[in-house]
Amino acid sequence: MDAKTISKLVRKVPDYPQPGVVFRDITPLLADADAFADVVEAMSTRIEAHHARALVALEARGFLFGAAIASRLQMPLHLARKPGKLPCETVRRSYALEYGEDGLELHADAFAGDTRCAIVDDVLATGGTAAAAAELISALGAKPVCCVVLLELESLGGRKRLGEVPVESLLIDEP
Amino acid sequence: MDAKTISKLVRKVPDYPQPGVVFRDITPLLADADAFADVVEAMSTRIEAHHARALVALEARGFLFGAAIASRLQMPLHLARKPGKLPCETVRRSYALEYGEDGLELHADAFAGDTRCAIVDDVLATGGTAAAAAELISALGAKPVCCVVLLELESLGGRKRLGEVPVESLLIDEP
Repeated sequence: MDAKTISKLVRKVPDYPQPGVVFRDITPLLADADAFADVVEAMSTRIEAHHARALVALEARGFLFGAAIASRLQMPLHLARKPGKLPCETVRRSYALEYGEDGLELHADAFAGDTRCAIVDDVLATGGTAAAAAELISALGAKPVCCVVLLELESLGGRKRLGEVPVESLLIDEP
Repeated sequence: MDAKTISKLVRKVPDYPQPGVVFRDITPLLADADAFADVVEAMSTRIEAHHARALVALEARGFLFGAAIASRLQMPLHLARKPGKLPCETVRRSYALEYGEDGLELHADAFAGDTRCAIVDDVLATGGTAAAAAELISALGAKPVCCVVLLELESLGGRKRLGEVPVESLLIDEP
């Protein structure tokens, strides 16, 4: 399935969740089994190319791609969640939003060693969440080797914010 | 992998999120690729036995199992989310919690017809969320044919609350 076909299954919703923002709704893609399979396969290929040995999926839509890829590649899956959602000891990073700030956590016992980790999410926008995930992975002694997303909103600069962690995106669009 | 081995990968966390509750933490299971694969296979088998043609995954941990199963079975995946998280027109059901209430939404355009749907989540406790999902599926003209979970906390009565929708659980435990 070509990028244009997949792109049409990502619905643009204007002024959501706030005026001026065009939200990318992946629910039509999830409802198309062939398209979702193709996306999972393409993301898996990118992850294998970086020799990742574990996945870190970002709450909540990153769980969808992360779990499907983990299942396909038979790879350990770790959850990066909003503060207070993981029940055991965690490490936390805060990051700035346009208004206020948000945080992300990983379980402190997530990695046994310097595991090569792929960060997985649906959309890369400003990159705040993905950069926080990369910092958490490093703080726990593992190595973030790539950030793999369905869609990159290129001009928001997420790729730059991730520094040396390469970004792999199946689709690139403007915000 | 036998049920006892899988059961050991569901970590019991006492007094989380509140005193007296024993939380079931599935993160060790997700981090064990072989165990997760076995669970996804076993849940998939149950879903196929009910001739489901689509999946409805419950936010957020249900997304993990739902997406992996959808990918494996090449089945359409729909998201049941907390209020305000789905960007387009939705239908909503509210349900009682021990203190207060919560809600669940599906996109109004989720189903094209009377699709046979499997509800997917990690844990079935009192069944409030799963029952709300079943009602939403019916309200949209589709048919909830089973509720498939990793773990059922049997004495909390979730199965009863789901009425005629059969529950398939890989593990059964006490709260």
